[in-house]
Amino acid sequence: MDFSSKLLENAVNEVSRLPGIGKRTALRLVLHLLKQPSDNTKYLSEALLHLRNDVKTCEKCHNISDTLLCDICNNPKRNPEIVCVVEDIRDVMAIESTSQFNGLYHVLGGKISPIEGIGPQNLQIESLVSKVEKGEVKELIFALSSTMEGDTTNFYIFKQIEKFEITTSTIARGISVGDELEYADEVTLGRSIVNRIPFEQSIRS
Amino acid sequence: MDFSSKLLENAVNEVSRLPGIGKRTALRLVLHLLKQPSDNTKYLSEALLHLRNDVKTCEKCHNISDTLLCDICNNPKRNPEIVCVVEDIRDVMAIESTSQFNGLYHVLGGKISPIEGIGPQNLQIESLVSKVEKGEVKELIFALSSTMEGDTTNFYIFKQIEKFEITTSTIARGISVGDELEYADEVTLGRSIVNRIPFEQSIRS
Ligand SMILES: [Zn+2]
Ligand SMILES: [Zn+2]
Repeated sequence: MDFSSKLLENAVNEVSRLPGIGKRTALRLVLHLLKQPSDNTKYLSEALLHLRNDVKTCEKCHNISDTLLCDICNNPKRNPEIVCVVEDIRDVMAIESTSQFNGLYHVLGGKISPIEGIGPQNLQIESLVSKVEKGEVKELIFALSSTMEGDTTNFYIFKQIEKFEITTSTIARGISVGDELEYADEVTLGRSIVNRIPFEQSIRS
Repeated sequence: MDFSSKLLENAVNEVSRLPGIGKRTALRLVLHLLKQPSDNTKYLSEALLHLRNDVKTCEKCHNISDTLLCDICNNPKRNPEIVCVVEDIRDVMAIESTSQFNGLYHVLGGKISPIEGIGPQNLQIESLVSKVEKGEVKELIFALSSTMEGDTTNFYIFKQIEKFEITTSTIARGISVGDELEYADEVTLGRSIVNRIPFEQSIRS
């Protein structure tokens, strides 16, 4: 691209570093900002900077939070003995939007994927096992996506905690196999939580 | 969406104001920034702010520029007597990338569109007519997209300048009718500039 402005070129380059945003799209977005009041660009930049610099990770569930303990973990009406294990914050948002779950979460931060070089040590598995070990948890609901990586991760965790007295379950597959949780509709996803099945039953089927 | 963080919610809202970016995409982009070093977010924000606050519009051709007069208008090797009329800066970039044009540009800033409420007074038409009036221009090349709005704009300008002694042409339609200039391949677009035809001929055909 032949830019007539270094400032423009620089902005397009930075925007096109974002995943799925090519140079053309970046140029379109940046030219849009130029047509809008400068306050829009100010608010956008400030929102990104504030988030990146000030956001925290809940020290209990590893969810994204503005405080050391997230609103969910901090809520006395939630049942801390039921913990739903998810890959990332988008899954928390998806399940929360169903209003069908009253326990807490544990955000792993991904799933085991040898191809992407993600092993158990890169995920929040140790802190999960430690919660179980301390007897804080009575039931663990696996809500990872039903892909090979998701199943591997479920199984890896299950092997670590099966010696403890704990109920394990996976969310009922009302949602089709291979689908990402975050794209499931709320009703289906809500039902799959209510109808969760014992984890051991799920690996036999 | 149920956000566990106001900072996150705010960032997603700001990003999703961009055209063609929904809430889900915005969330994906923002979570990506959280996984990257904080410098990436810093560079992105700074690039956008610098662009928005410091970029100028060339006072001669209305192209985006870092200086009062853009590099093209400022280049003594370019022929100021041939002016190519385009809708926006993306068209300048597209034509420059062909290396087939040695004149200057005149960026209208859009095209006449009654549906979108864009009239001649919203575009840089007066300054173009004034250039012609002063005898600065010998040839005007219309390079607007061949849509109804583009044709209307061409014709409106043509009516304003036909009384002056000036050659008018439109770029040869090697590129298919209805196509946007910026998506044309360089070779085709370059040829359509070299083979430009008199404007009067183009409205007769
Ligand atoms: Zn938490
Ligand atoms: Zn210029």
